[in-house]
Amino acid sequence: MPELRKDPIIGRWVIISTERGKRPVDYEVVPEPTKKGGCPFCYGNEALTPPEIMAARPPGSPPNGPGWQLRVVPNKFPALRVEGQLDKSGEGLYDKMTGIGAHEIFIETPVHDLHLADMETGQIADLLQAFVSRMQDLKRDIRLKYLMIFKNQGFRAGATMEHSHSQLIATPIVPKTIKEEMEGSLEYYKYKERCVFCDIIKQEIEDARRLVIENDRFVSIVPYAARFPFETWILPKNHLSSFENTTIPDLKILAEILKGTLLRMNRSVNTPPYNLVLHTAPCDRPKIDHYHWHIEIMPRLTRVAGFERGTGFYINPTPPEEAAAFLREVDVN
Amino acid sequence: MPELRKDPIIGRWVIISTERGKRPVDYEVVPEPTKKGGCPFCYGNEALTPPEIMAARPPGSPPNGPGWQLRVVPNKFPALRVEGQLDKSGEGLYDKMTGIGAHEIFIETPVHDLHLADMETGQIADLLQAFVSRMQDLKRDIRLKYLMIFKNQGFRAGATMEHSHSQLIATPIVPKTIKEEMEGSLEYYKYKERCVFCDIIKQEIEDARRLVIENDRFVSIVPYAARFPFETWILPKNHLSSFENTTIPDLKILAEILKGTLLRMNRSVNTPPYNLVLHTAPCDRPKIDHYHWHIEIMPRLTRVAGFERGTGFYINPTPPEEAAAFLREVDVN
Repeated sequence: MPELRKDPIIGRWVIISTERGKRPVDYEVVPEPTKKGGCPFCYGNEALTPPEIMAARPPGSPPNGPGWQLRVVPNKFPALRVEGQLDKSGEGLYDKMTGIGAHEIFIETPVHDLHLADMETGQIADLLQAFVSRMQDLKRDIRLKYLMIFKNQGFRAGATMEHSHSQLIATPIVPKTIKEEMEGSLEYYKYKERCVFCDIIKQEIEDARRLVIENDRFVSIVPYAARFPFETWILPKNHLSSFENTTIPDLKILAEILKGTLLRMNRSVNTPPYNLVLHTAPCDRPKIDHYHWHIEIMPRLTRVAGFERGTGFYINPTPPEEAAAFLREVDVN
Repeated sequence: MPELRKDPIIGRWVIISTERGKRPVDYEVVPEPTKKGGCPFCYGNEALTPPEIMAARPPGSPPNGPGWQLRVVPNKFPALRVEGQLDKSGEGLYDKMTGIGAHEIFIETPVHDLHLADMETGQIADLLQAFVSRMQDLKRDIRLKYLMIFKNQGFRAGATMEHSHSQLIATPIVPKTIKEEMEGSLEYYKYKERCVFCDIIKQEIEDARRLVIENDRFVSIVPYAARFPFETWILPKNHLSSFENTTIPDLKILAEILKGTLLRMNRSVNTPPYNLVLHTAPCDRPKIDHYHWHIEIMPRLTRVAGFERGTGFYINPTPPEEAAAFLREVDVN
């Protein structure tokens, strides 16, 4: 009998089709063709990107040349632009505004085909610190209401560049998904006077069936109402609503669990394309009792079709408990 | 300058990247491989599906054999099942229920490679009538709260079968997307005492820039805040909240505009994979002043990536006014 499960934060129902119960080998991951050469994210091609905003490079080395370990550049084809006035207007019954925002690219490594999961923990920690640094800078622009960090790994996950990179899009409004999480977690808080994410962490650690890995500061779980097979979430054990307020020592510990989680996913289901998103509180809400930042990692093993698009319902063919068991048991050494 | 536009029903913002302004030729539609033979939806293979629920076939011809023009069968691998008790329970802070529901397949034609857009209007009208008939039957099951009709055309739109078909999934809860539309349109109604969809239709007919085609009873438009390039919506001009209350003469007129809209999409952007969803009121809300049934057709020309998954925000590289102009101007004779 299939099971319907409800996400406790935003009330999204998911169909867990237990009967199909797909195991890792049941998912076919088609290798994607690699096309080396002429990559604007490789050494020597720095002039092919807009000038760098920041970079990790040897002291004294000139910007926009080789030698760097990490580079942050504006997107050459930005979805939103920093320049201009934030202008809101109507058009009959419709509302629109100018597309003010920012769109930055984090080139995570100079090595063309190195995946995030296979980088040194220190390199991943530097990337996380670069996120914090860019977020703290952009927060000073009061037109920007939200900073979304995300990563598309693989063409089928929407990546247009093969070379490993993350992105930041700053928007002049709080996106719908975050609004829903903010409202849902506030409802829970009003009723329970507790953060729903803190309650989830407590229950998942005690229950242990959906736990992937944990360390002193963070936990990696398969969510109870996971939309996608092998979806995982990473959350800080101590309540914190804004990612960018994470301390530097904690970012290093986060890098460890992020690497561990991605490695387990890659080893379990054959290095799938995936999307990673970082959910944090809106810019002007730095310390909230009811919201809790977290990372969502969504492998692309199933295809999202009309039913999902029409209903917002997802069908997940691998029960979260089974996915977590596979992820725990895989050999990562 | 990109533009942010808000959907007036559920408040979803969309980024219209006017600068990219992609024209139909800019979208590459990769032809999908066809694999004929052994298709359970073809003549002679009726035994490969579960026994038919209904069919359009010559009077007196036996069920589950050839000769039919349209066949409705239960899904062999249903996402939800009719048998069993609807059981709701908790698991710590989580909620779940048994996966009661129904999952039916509408085999639209015996011809393996005939697309819906290329069928005779009469055949399409028969399909629409079959939807109504199955919905009216399933509505008598009080455990079912929502009936979602949808269609995936093409592998990249999530179809697992090549042979043209639609699906119906009945769920024991009202899906999130429909709940949002119900709530959003109720808010509007409270404020304006008018149906937001009726207001949209009025404005779109007067404005004409986003109009694709219209007839006496229906209108086909590119929505103001379209998520996807060449997305179109078909709505009845007269207020009606439940699709299944459409009269038989109107279903015939609907078949015409549906065929016309799909043909224009296929001719404009080279027969893309697409999802079609029918949004209607929940089962137990047959006549509501604030809700208005409609069909949403979403071609798969862009890839949905981490940003969309993380935010619920979409980036549409073709302005709706341009998409509508292309759709209007294409030659469908």
